Amino acid sequence: MKFDIITIFPDIFKSYFKESLIGKAIKNKLISVNIHNLRDWADGKHKTVDDKPFGGGLGMVMKVEPIFKAVADLKKSQIPNPKSQTSPKFKAKNSKTKVILFTPRGQKFNQKIAHQLSKSKRIIMICGRYEGVDERVAKNIADLELSIGDYDLMGGELPAMIVVETISRLVPKVIGKKKLLKERITKSGGFIEYAQYTRPEVFKKWRVPEVLTSGDHKKIKEWREKNRKIIEN
Amino acid sequence: MKFDIITIFPDIFKSYFKESLIGKAIKNKLISVNIHNLRDWADGKHKTVDDKPFGGGLGMVMKVEPIFKAVADLKKSQIPNPKSQTSPKFKAKNSKTKVILFTPRGQKFNQKIAHQLSKSKRIIMICGRYEGVDERVAKNIADLELSIGDYDLMGGELPAMIVVETISRLVPKVIGKKKLLKERITKSGGFIEYAQYTRPEVFKKWRVPEVLTSGDHKKIKEWREKNRKIIEN
Repeated sequence: MKFDIITIFPDIFKSYFKESLIGKAIKNKLISVNIHNLRDWADGKHKTVDDKPFGGGLGMVMKVEPIFKAVADLKKSQIPNPKSQTSPKFKAKNSKTKVILFTPRGQKFNQKIAHQLSKSKRIIMICGRYEGVDERVAKNIADLELSIGDYDLMGGELPAMIVVETISRLVPKVIGKKKLLKERITKSGGFIEYAQYTRPEVFKKWRVPEVLTSGDHKKIKEWREKNRKIIEN
Repeated sequence: MKFDIITIFPDIFKSYFKESLIGKAIKNKLISVNIHNLRDWADGKHKTVDDKPFGGGLGMVMKVEPIFKAVADLKKSQIPNPKSQTSPKFKAKNSKTKVILFTPRGQKFNQKIAHQLSKSKRIIMICGRYEGVDERVAKNIADLELSIGDYDLMGGELPAMIVVETISRLVPKVIGKKKLLKERITKSGGFIEYAQYTRPEVFKKWRVPEVLTSGDHKKIKEWREKNRKIIEN
């Protein structure tokens, strides 16, 4: 699984991708994450990536051209066959590469979409900054528009990390303990989350529910079923 | 606005909080963000923060004690009055400090909650890693449990960044252009997002909608109302 992130803040990602299980997955080559500076595809001395909106209004809008060139170059780099077309296919819905644009108007990202995306070979993510991205990117370049939730962010950088972390969990060997994963997975692939307790049995005046220390496996199972949430795939 | 993040991966955050408008807001002291290593409150040679779950099951659960101590110490550090109680009040619903635990079973974070939280003086966030956190943290220590969306993450670190970024946008002067903010805000405080275009008028065969280059402000307004999404506060 290969992730490409196109951003004007490439340094945001540095420490996040070095740490925890994500850092390990990259080190072990289970996934690869490449951060690309959008300005590398911008023209002119100032490497401008934004301009004023048509129709008026304050704020700047990210231009279509540098994003087009970035995605085109990244798509080309994956095609090893020299006879294949030189201009990349955009919006190739069934290909193994998916291009994602993050926008508040996008489809709500959830575990089901993560599951579908995990079948791709490569995911290219375009991080807008939220004054807006020229709509031609959504219409003609991105395969899908995603929103990670109903809150206003400053840009697509955190959503890109969310997508990498969520999908990486589904890549074999990234989470490690296979058994653990199975125990928490429903038949349909959903994820089971329930209330957990560990030692000490009493802390301050707060006691662990007695059923959990009873040794009665049937009752424990029943209790957990009552105190859980399932996130369906 | 003061943010405290309790985590076992303090290094994850390093570069994120240096960059973009968030980095600027911290530099300009509009917000402060303090990252705390949970292990600093753990006992023993190994600074253990997790243990096996009561009732059986694979995986480890984060212990209540180090989290209790961390939150207690952070809460104490904010009380300058030496006569005030030495043991911190937990679950003080109306205080200006809010303690958040991230969990998949939590309330869905949205712009409305961000707006409410932005009225706090201080937000302490507890980042679990998702095999589970001893439920006594949710019941007795956290003021609220939040989930940022229906997808499985590896821990609460990205949710903490999401909360900081979303709430910081609402802190005066962080976004800068006040006019811009007003233009995009509804009467009730919601955020307006609509399709945007910028130069060139034609790129490849992709043309900007003619209405936006018509100069007809009434029609432009109508078109934008048709092509927008409002995220309510």
